[in-house]
Amino acid sequence: MKVLSYTEGQWHKEGKETDLVSAVTGDPVAQMVEADLDYKAACEYARQTGGPVLREMSIHERAFKIKFMGQYLMERKKKYYELSTHTGATKKDSWIDIDGGIITAFLISSKSRRNLTDRPYHVEGDHERMSRKGTFVGQHVCVPRHGVAVHINAFNFPVWGMLEKMAPAIIAGMPVIVKPSPTGSFLAYEVFKDIIESGLLPEGSVQFIAADKPGDLLDHLISQDVVAFTGSATTGKKLKAHPNIIANNVRFNLEADSLNASILGSDVTPVMPEFDLFIDEVAEEMTVKTGQKCTAIRRTIVPKELTEEVIEALKQRLEKTSVGDPSKKETQMGPLASSLQAERFNEQLQQLTEVTDTAYAPTNGHGDAFSAPRLLVCHKPMQVDEVHKLEAFGPMTTVMPYESTKEAIALANKADGSLVGSLFTADDSLAREITMGCAPYHGRFMVINRNSAEESTGHGSPIGSLVHGGPGHAGGGEELGGARAVLHNMQRVALQGSPTTLTNITKQYIKGAETRESEKHPFQKYFEDLEPGESLTTDKRTVNEQDIEDFAELSGDHFYAHTDPKAAARSLFGKIVAHGYFVLSATAGLFVHPDEGPVMLNYGLENLRFLAPVAPGDTIQAKLIVKRKNVRQKKADDKFPFGVVYWDVEVTNQNEEMVAEYTILTLVKRRNRLDIDIFEEEEN
Amino acid sequence: MKVLSYTEGQWHKEGKETDLVSAVTGDPVAQMVEADLDYKAACEYARQTGGPVLREMSIHERAFKIKFMGQYLMERKKKYYELSTHTGATKKDSWIDIDGGIITAFLISSKSRRNLTDRPYHVEGDHERMSRKGTFVGQHVCVPRHGVAVHINAFNFPVWGMLEKMAPAIIAGMPVIVKPSPTGSFLAYEVFKDIIESGLLPEGSVQFIAADKPGDLLDHLISQDVVAFTGSATTGKKLKAHPNIIANNVRFNLEADSLNASILGSDVTPVMPEFDLFIDEVAEEMTVKTGQKCTAIRRTIVPKELTEEVIEALKQRLEKTSVGDPSKKETQMGPLASSLQAERFNEQLQQLTEVTDTAYAPTNGHGDAFSAPRLLVCHKPMQVDEVHKLEAFGPMTTVMPYESTKEAIALANKADGSLVGSLFTADDSLAREITMGCAPYHGRFMVINRNSAEESTGHGSPIGSLVHGGPGHAGGGEELGGARAVLHNMQRVALQGSPTTLTNITKQYIKGAETRESEKHPFQKYFEDLEPGESLTTDKRTVNEQDIEDFAELSGDHFYAHTDPKAAARSLFGKIVAHGYFVLSATAGLFVHPDEGPVMLNYGLENLRFLAPVAPGDTIQAKLIVKRKNVRQKKADDKFPFGVVYWDVEVTNQNEEMVAEYTILTLVKRRNRLDIDIFEEEEN
Repeated sequence: MKVLSYTEGQWHKEGKETDLVSAVTGDPVAQMVEADLDYKAACEYARQTGGPVLREMSIHERAFKIKFMGQYLMERKKKYYELSTHTGATKKDSWIDIDGGIITAFLISSKSRRNLTDRPYHVEGDHERMSRKGTFVGQHVCVPRHGVAVHINAFNFPVWGMLEKMAPAIIAGMPVIVKPSPTGSFLAYEVFKDIIESGLLPEGSVQFIAADKPGDLLDHLISQDVVAFTGSATTGKKLKAHPNIIANNVRFNLEADSLNASILGSDVTPVMPEFDLFIDEVAEEMTVKTGQKCTAIRRTIVPKELTEEVIEALKQRLEKTSVGDPSKKETQMGPLASSLQAERFNEQLQQLTEVTDTAYAPTNGHGDAFSAPRLLVCHKPMQVDEVHKLEAFGPMTTVMPYESTKEAIALANKADGSLVGSLFTADDSLAREITMGCAPYHGRFMVINRNSAEESTGHGSPIGSLVHGGPGHAGGGEELGGARAVLHNMQRVALQGSPTTLTNITKQYIKGAETRESEKHPFQKYFEDLEPGESLTTDKRTVNEQDIEDFAELSGDHFYAHTDPKAAARSLFGKIVAHGYFVLSATAGLFVHPDEGPVMLNYGLENLRFLAPVAPGDTIQAKLIVKRKNVRQKKADDKFPFGVVYWDVEVTNQNEEMVAEYTILTLVKRRNRLDIDIFEEEEN
Repeated sequence: MKVLSYTEGQWHKEGKETDLVSAVTGDPVAQMVEADLDYKAACEYARQTGGPVLREMSIHERAFKIKFMGQYLMERKKKYYELSTHTGATKKDSWIDIDGGIITAFLISSKSRRNLTDRPYHVEGDHERMSRKGTFVGQHVCVPRHGVAVHINAFNFPVWGMLEKMAPAIIAGMPVIVKPSPTGSFLAYEVFKDIIESGLLPEGSVQFIAADKPGDLLDHLISQDVVAFTGSATTGKKLKAHPNIIANNVRFNLEADSLNASILGSDVTPVMPEFDLFIDEVAEEMTVKTGQKCTAIRRTIVPKELTEEVIEALKQRLEKTSVGDPSKKETQMGPLASSLQAERFNEQLQQLTEVTDTAYAPTNGHGDAFSAPRLLVCHKPMQVDEVHKLEAFGPMTTVMPYESTKEAIALANKADGSLVGSLFTADDSLAREITMGCAPYHGRFMVINRNSAEESTGHGSPIGSLVHGGPGHAGGGEELGGARAVLHNMQRVALQGSPTTLTNITKQYIKGAETRESEKHPFQKYFEDLEPGESLTTDKRTVNEQDIEDFAELSGDHFYAHTDPKAAARSLFGKIVAHGYFVLSATAGLFVHPDEGPVMLNYGLENLRFLAPVAPGDTIQAKLIVKRKNVRQKKADDKFPFGVVYWDVEVTNQNEEMVAEYTILTLVKRRNRLDIDIFEEEEN
């Protein structure tokens, strides 16, 4: 097969060809065709063709595109697994890359639909009141940048690396140029080709660079663009300081390999389950993906008195790890990604062995790209800086004994910033001390004991809903983290103006804006017919003593402030007042339309504040205002196609004082089904 | 007076002295003493002395320190105003700098107490469920970085510039080194000296560098440090690309001057109020702080047919602007900050006048540092790039005519990233088009009409609750924005583990964690005695048809799903179900203790979801769990010193299905008053 570039809507079939070889056999798997690309034109194409079309869609529509893309790829994953073997990956390794990548895209899609606005932009958080009368307010909005997202990916996860960056960028409304590492690029290419063939993403929204280096691509970036780089710290820092990146203040996210540590708590003895869990995790992280993970455990920090037990247990575990052809079922660890990678790994190991002892180094009985797992031990890790700085990118770890909890923390932090750290302990107060000590130096920190181990996703696995990226050595960047990943590709802008103007700009009701009374009861209107700012002003109800007594009886809530005049006189209110839940209930009584209609149910309520007490004799009245809407649907053949409507509720008394404010969430029928067939996850 | 450095707990009185002169008279106001500082030691001092003490305090405690510091400064502001005159500031200019700076510190303090956790770290957002049984979950936490925050400030706002960066850093738990611009540093110094004298901030938490350049300070920064720079783009970019900043991935925030635009909407005619409001705003932004604001309106974008009217109106307005000694009451505009600044301004103007016409340029009848306001006009602004790139940092603007809305947007965006833009229009649909067109290029965008003008805070004023910073030319940074400002100084880390372990680490109840039943009813316990994870499991209640009928009657909510068996059969539920608000009310009946006790009232409710219907015959039971606590107090002599306790409520049915989940907020009495005297703003 040929690995081609795809830019400006074209596959580029002519160019210098380079063999991409199998990590297993050394035989060519594909030829990378390095065409003479016009990078400037590719950037312009993204900005002028892909960007504007993406920006016309809402965040939810873009998120659905990513969901469908993921489904399309999931159906074709068998062929990706076949190609993946040639990167040296076992079936399990491939799962992390292929299924893991697609699942991450699903997750970012689902989180975006749950947490972000169903508009081309996201209306972020509440408005900010900035004036006494409330005629001038602020509202943060995150809008798609008018640029291109350039993604420079590492060789170790051809699929995951591409999808975890592409999904959030597309959902944000930014077109993408992917530049994978040549190693393993045949796999990234196969997936990319399917993305194009699916026709799911608009023309110009994704481009692919088959090349050794990204040429003069970075010279053409402008301030609206973003770059996300995963790979070696050296290359990453060089690109981050690229004169054009600096000159234009191009947003640059750097995610670099780090020397991640796992710590065994001093409370753990070899007979405790936490000991075995720790050994399993370290051995697993050494061997999965043949240790080529930016999150692998390079440093194994153990209580000094357990050093020998840990080494012995790890040895026993590693001896059972069968190394070989990853396509074979019995193989637990394949080769490194290439013979070049194996060579580099050996050089790095060489440097490390100058300052460490070797605890386990079986001979390597396979081909050029293979390496057996290697266990080093550094007996004075506080004194040897190299073990915290030099990374050997392959199946290895260095065992480091510590003498106190403080020292364990100091050792973990000596790597000067890691993507992830972990701790195995059965003692939660020790967990608190170590976790809080390590937290500033880590992007993720996992604590495992016998209760959490079974369902743990593991030290080495970035999770779409949690941030990925660490300070310092790890690059100082931040990716993933649910909807945050999308916002990283957007520009946050603080809008200021009258609430009415901001409502008209954002198409989301901003408190204080003009409302217009609905011509009929809004619960009798379909989803499509409800507009932000549309309101219902209810009748009034005067609350009397009997209401409060009846409510106490019916609810069983006999709190003294509602029932005991003497005690109530001593309370904050100084007299009997109605239950807050009575006010809520009576308000629903005022705004609910009793008949069947499009509004099916009120399934949630948010940000309720009781602002003033309601006492017998007070008269309440409510105003219900459409705040915003989200389309929701379960399956295409659902009995009820529906959406969610958020309503602001304002309850006032006879003095026009606000008594309570809150937002209710209702399911409202749609006139029309969406032209999509999806299974929407349950709201939790 | 002498302007001294303060590092390592010492004032440095020896060193090269340089005169700092009055912008008004040219006479020396102070001598800056440039000592031979050990920058490495200063950084270490911050990290080892200030940092650890700050990190012992909770975010709220640190926020209170900032509040008290602000109060201390506010009481001493008279002398700052006197010094401020010598920077060339009128009384109004000084207000923006001095009161504006202190108010910003108050605001960040108040937002932090409202929105961030009352712990040394912030527990951010909800936990992330990541497994089926829920034994392994994730939780984002933001922790103070173990480094120093270096703040390099611009000359134009000596006080505001220092406080808007210092407040969030200290609240985050990071010690600060301030390096002000020498120009005007006598004012920053006076305020800094008071901060030290107040004794409010722990030793080592703030240091001050009196120097022309920051020496080798940046060479000593490590990955836990952060740098925030405000000033010229050229210097900022140089520092951002500093080899040590790059090598250690030091977090760097750049805020640079930008060529901000204000647009007059094409709907506006000279007889409309929006026309006058626009003229006032442009003239104001040209002259306030003598045009030396990074947010000033450098580009005045107007409908082509109104060009002459706008110029004429601006001229008339500017002619009335009296320029002179800023200490005099009648003076509306003082000198630039120094004769050097005036010289630079004239050079920059010179360059601009090569590509523009001059519309207004009265002679300058004052001293060296003075300049009259200048009005340029560029008739073909789409063709002349220089007017969008070259900034003249003084009292000037360039008027630019546009022919279409698209062109107005294109012109505003041609500056390639601005801190702020604004628009004057009475037409909200035009407002939407222009705002959304400009948003990706702006950090803030203000839309003004006759309704919002009166209470507007103005084009040029960054607001503490809104983000400040723009893309591209404006530096690509982000400051302020309420509690966001604090998080910019923290490290976000994703914790993973069992809910119980994460509860024990964060000291905040994480759903799914083990709970322990309170030995007595928790509503009978004081604030201090309630611990996260402490629970109350209530009695059970079986709901019957009569309950639902009674509730419909009492609330007035006769929705068919609760009252009409036939219609209910057609509903989502297929039968009569209880009102959601009845479930809430009955649950309160189960958990409320009727007697007087420390829990005073339930004043709010959040994140309610009804997860399963409750039908006649169903039996409900609730569990109330202490989630987290915040200290709150109004005045020291308040009748009720109190705190806020957040409780998770879980309502289940006889099948142990979750029926509803939510959080309630209660005011709970404290045994003890805080040893502080503050007025806490009302919860809104």
